[in-house]
Amino acid sequence: MAAKNRIVNDIESLRVITDPCEGGTTRIGFTAKYREGAEYFKERMREIGLEVREDKIGNVYGRFPGKDDSLPAIVAGSHLDTVRNAGAYDGVAGAACALEAARMIKENNIKLNHPLEVMGIIEEEGTRFGQVLLGSKFVTGAFSDADMDKIKDEDGKTLGNIISAYQLKDSCPCYRESNEVLAFLELHDEQGPLLEDKGLDIGIVDKIVAISWLTVTVNGFAGHAGTIPMPLRQDAATGASHMISRISSYTTEKYSYQATATVGQLKLLPGSVNCVPGKCIFSVDLRAASLEIIEDITKYLRKLGKECEELFHVSTEVEVNSRQSPIEMNFDIRQVYRDSCEKLGYSYCSMNSGAGHDSMIFSKHWPSAMFFIPCRKGITHNPEEYVTPEALEKGANLLYESILAIDKLE
Amino acid sequence: MAAKNRIVNDIESLRVITDPCEGGTTRIGFTAKYREGAEYFKERMREIGLEVREDKIGNVYGRFPGKDDSLPAIVAGSHLDTVRNAGAYDGVAGAACALEAARMIKENNIKLNHPLEVMGIIEEEGTRFGQVLLGSKFVTGAFSDADMDKIKDEDGKTLGNIISAYQLKDSCPCYRESNEVLAFLELHDEQGPLLEDKGLDIGIVDKIVAISWLTVTVNGFAGHAGTIPMPLRQDAATGASHMISRISSYTTEKYSYQATATVGQLKLLPGSVNCVPGKCIFSVDLRAASLEIIEDITKYLRKLGKECEELFHVSTEVEVNSRQSPIEMNFDIRQVYRDSCEKLGYSYCSMNSGAGHDSMIFSKHWPSAMFFIPCRKGITHNPEEYVTPEALEKGANLLYESILAIDKLE
Repeated sequence: MAAKNRIVNDIESLRVITDPCEGGTTRIGFTAKYREGAEYFKERMREIGLEVREDKIGNVYGRFPGKDDSLPAIVAGSHLDTVRNAGAYDGVAGAACALEAARMIKENNIKLNHPLEVMGIIEEEGTRFGQVLLGSKFVTGAFSDADMDKIKDEDGKTLGNIISAYQLKDSCPCYRESNEVLAFLELHDEQGPLLEDKGLDIGIVDKIVAISWLTVTVNGFAGHAGTIPMPLRQDAATGASHMISRISSYTTEKYSYQATATVGQLKLLPGSVNCVPGKCIFSVDLRAASLEIIEDITKYLRKLGKECEELFHVSTEVEVNSRQSPIEMNFDIRQVYRDSCEKLGYSYCSMNSGAGHDSMIFSKHWPSAMFFIPCRKGITHNPEEYVTPEALEKGANLLYESILAIDKLE
Repeated sequence: MAAKNRIVNDIESLRVITDPCEGGTTRIGFTAKYREGAEYFKERMREIGLEVREDKIGNVYGRFPGKDDSLPAIVAGSHLDTVRNAGAYDGVAGAACALEAARMIKENNIKLNHPLEVMGIIEEEGTRFGQVLLGSKFVTGAFSDADMDKIKDEDGKTLGNIISAYQLKDSCPCYRESNEVLAFLELHDEQGPLLEDKGLDIGIVDKIVAISWLTVTVNGFAGHAGTIPMPLRQDAATGASHMISRISSYTTEKYSYQATATVGQLKLLPGSVNCVPGKCIFSVDLRAASLEIIEDITKYLRKLGKECEELFHVSTEVEVNSRQSPIEMNFDIRQVYRDSCEKLGYSYCSMNSGAGHDSMIFSKHWPSAMFFIPCRKGITHNPEEYVTPEALEKGANLLYESILAIDKLE
């Protein structure tokens, strides 16, 4: 069985490897603190005899050779970077539980047919370059070394500039052929409240939902707050608030737990207390299990725009910036997760992931599937994020059992 | 009669005395361009024999002595500064028409009993120091020289620092006793659409409306846009948009032309596309002829806050930052305006000013009253602001007639 104290110890050790922030953890890819965290993780891997390597982008691997080391590897892990002022579990829990699963294999003197690799992925969060899932994209070839000079941070510094100071001399290439990996397994905390609410141990992810990002612009006419009478206004804020309050209630009433609509950014122009806003620009993040639902909500948003034009004499534009299909997790690995839960006596359900994860990138390249463990109140990207030691232990046990089962599948 | 070409010439000459901006005029107090504009205005005043002086804050005056020069002065004018990328008429129209009225008095060889002063006021807009009506406040003693070191711009530079480079060596004191001025007359373009809509020449201002500024804070709980289901959210943006759309419709339906409610600034936190907003802070600018109406709208805003708490599981705070009573314009001067309109055959109405003006400050110190002339579509603080030459001419004629009438009142 997994030892929860060892997992908690690794997570707590990484929690305090942080740049200064308000009570949480800030360990952004390619920084000195990220190097410190990666070296901590590599040292723990070396302790149990894993062969450690690091690729050019900074992903770290620890490998037990297989009985037949020419077979494709079983890879388990998650990311080691954090957003600013984060909690300790997002990503790290998956890496620490994969490490624990490898420890159990070592302790039980199990020799797998396939090589096993524990993986710590860099820069999943996209904090530095606004590019999420950077580490996994370099591994699957979505990005190549040549792209390092194209990816820039806010100050205009390229990833190429940054990485040259970070990269190890003996680093290995990032890209791996799709036949090099048999299965990628990822544990992650749910980042939502459903497992906790239902009292379940494990959420096996069916798919990562479809995501669409839109920009809505409401064009009114700016004017003095004191001199333009209400009936004659073309107030962009009134129009926008009409749309925002209704798109939220439409999505909640029609789709309940099946879709989300979020307005996370909003700008009023000119932005003076005493000026009727002439323009309002806001973002809409839509997520659902199918593109059909996203299309329906988008259609309703456009209808609200027309409604605003009549009611408030403004004009509206709804621009779809991106629309990404849902990504199905590998069927066979999900079956392994279910069988292993049954064997371990863990309660579980199927669910979708509303968030993107490295498994989304990997699943285009080799069989991949992820599962969730509960986190308190669904709080994440926040120092208050919390996962119980018991949940971590169950997660590590499920990874361990699944690795053994996959090793025997072929 | 007033010569519209002379007024237009002065306004167009001042229009092009501007710092670089996008097609409009930017002439902010205490800058080199403001000095250039003030010197232009002083030169035009000198041309017609007005005795020119400038006070320590930068207000400029041109004086015709009265038959009895110990009598209090009749002062007419408005401000010479602009907001950023402004039109050419806001303020300047009032100063240029006062200058034209003085020209007419000179041309008609009229010798008034009272001294007459044309006044160009500095920094009404408050663009540099966030302090509106600065010039008039120094004249009436609301600010004294000692305050110059307390008033700071965004960079922390004090008015005292700035003014020392701007101030003339022979400038006169700012403060004037309240018995030094018999009447202050101010022409301004309406900055609203009502006179144009009604086809009227003149709007005689009864009062400058009550103004209240509020800050509303909606506290929700931040979370991941993909992982927190809609029914479990505490979304600050949804709560805020509920309040904004309803405060706007309440004010429009209940008060129509009698009150305004404007949300000009809004901030979502943390402000990421993929994050449910945990906090929304927005400004509310309320204006109405009476404090009772302002109180009623504020009460409704608090009620909406309570409604949000039940509907969206957020908490709300409504903070009143300022509340200023309406300011009545001088009754006798308003009567003079009315009588002069009748004499000139101009159509007119009584109306309130939704905007603050220097007359608001002066009226606490000596008899003051203002009137409006129409501007196209109510557009102001915008390069597209436009007042017809005919409207300017009528405005100058009304100032001229009113000055003569007030001179004979005592």
